[in-house]
Amino acid sequence: MHMEKEANFNEWYNDIVEKAGLSDKRYPIKGMNVWTPYGWKIMRHADEFIRKELDSTGHDEVCFPLLIPETEFKKEKEHIKGFDSEVYWVTHAGLNELDVRLVVRPTSETAMYPMFSLWVRSHTDLPLKVYQIVNTFRYETKQTRSFIRVREIHFFESHTCHSTEEDAQKQVEEDLEILENIMKKLCIPYSLHTRTEWDKFPGAYYTVGLDTAMPNGRMLQIGSIHHYRTNFSIPYNITYEDADGEHKHVHQTTYGMSERLVGAMIGVHGDDKGLVLPPPVAPFQIVIVPIISKGNADAVLDAARKITNALENAGIRVKLDDCDERPGSKFYDWEIKGVPLRLELGMRDIDNNVVTFARRDNGEKGTISLSDISSGAELLLETIRNDMYNRAWKKQKECAVTIDSLKDVPENTLRFGWCGSEECGHRFEDENDLKLLGTPYVKEEFKGKCIVCGKPTDKVAYASRSI
Amino acid sequence: MHMEKEANFNEWYNDIVEKAGLSDKRYPIKGMNVWTPYGWKIMRHADEFIRKELDSTGHDEVCFPLLIPETEFKKEKEHIKGFDSEVYWVTHAGLNELDVRLVVRPTSETAMYPMFSLWVRSHTDLPLKVYQIVNTFRYETKQTRSFIRVREIHFFESHTCHSTEEDAQKQVEEDLEILENIMKKLCIPYSLHTRTEWDKFPGAYYTVGLDTAMPNGRMLQIGSIHHYRTNFSIPYNITYEDADGEHKHVHQTTYGMSERLVGAMIGVHGDDKGLVLPPPVAPFQIVIVPIISKGNADAVLDAARKITNALENAGIRVKLDDCDERPGSKFYDWEIKGVPLRLELGMRDIDNNVVTFARRDNGEKGTISLSDISSGAELLLETIRNDMYNRAWKKQKECAVTIDSLKDVPENTLRFGWCGSEECGHRFEDENDLKLLGTPYVKEEFKGKCIVCGKPTDKVAYASRSI
Repeated sequence: MHMEKEANFNEWYNDIVEKAGLSDKRYPIKGMNVWTPYGWKIMRHADEFIRKELDSTGHDEVCFPLLIPETEFKKEKEHIKGFDSEVYWVTHAGLNELDVRLVVRPTSETAMYPMFSLWVRSHTDLPLKVYQIVNTFRYETKQTRSFIRVREIHFFESHTCHSTEEDAQKQVEEDLEILENIMKKLCIPYSLHTRTEWDKFPGAYYTVGLDTAMPNGRMLQIGSIHHYRTNFSIPYNITYEDADGEHKHVHQTTYGMSERLVGAMIGVHGDDKGLVLPPPVAPFQIVIVPIISKGNADAVLDAARKITNALENAGIRVKLDDCDERPGSKFYDWEIKGVPLRLELGMRDIDNNVVTFARRDNGEKGTISLSDISSGAELLLETIRNDMYNRAWKKQKECAVTIDSLKDVPENTLRFGWCGSEECGHRFEDENDLKLLGTPYVKEEFKGKCIVCGKPTDKVAYASRSI
Repeated sequence: MHMEKEANFNEWYNDIVEKAGLSDKRYPIKGMNVWTPYGWKIMRHADEFIRKELDSTGHDEVCFPLLIPETEFKKEKEHIKGFDSEVYWVTHAGLNELDVRLVVRPTSETAMYPMFSLWVRSHTDLPLKVYQIVNTFRYETKQTRSFIRVREIHFFESHTCHSTEEDAQKQVEEDLEILENIMKKLCIPYSLHTRTEWDKFPGAYYTVGLDTAMPNGRMLQIGSIHHYRTNFSIPYNITYEDADGEHKHVHQTTYGMSERLVGAMIGVHGDDKGLVLPPPVAPFQIVIVPIISKGNADAVLDAARKITNALENAGIRVKLDDCDERPGSKFYDWEIKGVPLRLELGMRDIDNNVVTFARRDNGEKGTISLSDISSGAELLLETIRNDMYNRAWKKQKECAVTIDSLKDVPENTLRFGWCGSEECGHRFEDENDLKLLGTPYVKEEFKGKCIVCGKPTDKVAYASRSI
């Protein structure tokens, strides 16, 4: 097995997904993969963090139908233009052809908004804040890759309605706080880019892309936040009566993140030995490997079981690996699977009232006192999470390189002056095989020249090669 | 508002679903309803009980793709015959017609089994036990009804592979234990009927229907367990090498339950005042209504907040209803929503160091000591659950009436002699507008005559009018 992350990221990634048992891509439809148990557990832990944040900020979980009548889907013109070439169509049911064709949801604006127009009546119904965690569908024509570019996408989406544009803007700011809380758990750093006009979500007023740097220098969009103003509430007729009796259209936002979160965790943290999982999402946070020599099996296994129970009682997800393999072989297997913390327990450890630990993230070894095993393990797991998060943020920041010429551009995220014109933007993308990520959502001081036309500008933009 | 459960069950049911805010059927596709927050919370609590039982019996959660190629779907002949007229077909993607049409899953045998044939190699891979909680799709042509007959169905399905028919049979027995544990939480009683040959699941060796008596005497199938023997493993080529090196086909089972669980809870427990929710699934298990008179608002609200915190800290889901409505109006609203326990708190209660309670299930009132509020409330919630379960089981048992003639059959579940022949079975169904539920899965002593042909028989069967 050769897993060389830096030398060949793409092969390394596919190899890890398969060897760690995260997903099976042998399903007989390309780009529609099977979530196998280990990968699905990671995704579900991520979902739970998303749920917790949204529930605690007054969002209600709902579940809307998968299928959307073509008539509803076509109400917002930009939206349908954006999705026309990449949706699946249900045209038949049983032996009959349907009168109205049904779209398999690519995202749920057009499923939800006809209902919002029934639900919202008065300013007292606002804000309306709902979310759902469902699968969505896009007919990808590019090469597919597990978690990163698939045709059935596990997806969280929140949708909100507000009285005013300002209230909707405040929702975007709340979404960013939610994002920060979730990412602390998932140990994923991100940059916020306001997408270009031609790259924003179809129908949006503006789109903020949430981008994470992958080891090959490319930026992976792991989610996005959209402000819609009244672009959807007008065609879908979502209005409210304000305190003065006047009828107005609501201002809307959405926020979505997909299974790319799993792809980002793999790419950001993995190494040549395999996956490295952030403790909050790891199916097993700790693996215990008993080190048995002749005659002491019972004593060691007995002590290992006691430790397992103590850790489980403290709410830690533990695997006691008491199968017959050699310890070295177990180490190797659990390293591929990215278990954050390994505990090794032999007679010598027991005699010293300790257990030996090895951290997956940095290889550090040491001992924890057996008298204090639960709090010792909890502290270590939290230290690992914190270190993983900080290391990843450092790399994210280092990835961006400011350039002032398009000669010999490095394999990094690029930062440069842009006059802001569509013409220069398109020329930049077309002539350099680069993707404009947009302008920083949080304004940055800049003085320089547009990298295309050379005009002086105080606007800065970011770009990277396409994933 | 007129909600008369006994007099007109069907109207009562539709009314409750709407008034309690469980589901919105105004979505623009008939039979595809929106799970609104209150209903979805109930379903998700039920899902969590299902997950807990399956996880603790060695099942792994997975998530398979929604779409199934027609070529895979058609491999088992009986199966496709059973579903031919009721599946949705995806025929186009983007602007292209697909080479192979895709079925929107009605159930996942044909999605999973091509993968099982890759996953199972050796007897050491067995048993394979997986489950998923997903939505499934059936093109219902009968009249739809929320949770009971819908076209997008929230569904749990487990699928297992075993070395032998006997091992698969043991799985069926384990499924029945899982069922009992889940139903204790959901307070739903059930009867087990081995379905007739012409009513079993398409492709099954045998099917056990899980049937719950609704107040109109009809039986609602809330789930089913199937033993497949090798009926699917042969066409899907799922084989293992046994210890002797011989290659054999696996024996399979499945187990499924749907959102009908919610329909059953509504039907079994609701009353003329509204929904009555079993405490384990209630979004709010307790509502606290402060009883305020002039000048004591601060003291009462302060005490109510303390009680709310104490109950929340004990893990109870509590709603403090401190809005400006009159208490009587609040009682009425929360009764419709079925909150199991209401606590009323006024100055007199505070002076007596108690809180007044009212049980939703039987109207009983009393007081709980404030010194002991959490354990007092927990005990009451558990008593309510237990009483609801036992009352429902009593009704389920009373519903079945043994008959020996088809004259003037009552609106009950019917129990009668049946010689077992298909001819008598079909005649029974066709001439009486009744549905044969099958024979009891747990054998019953019987001596009598076939209700159709009059031949002496020791076989007993059950029937009811169709839901």
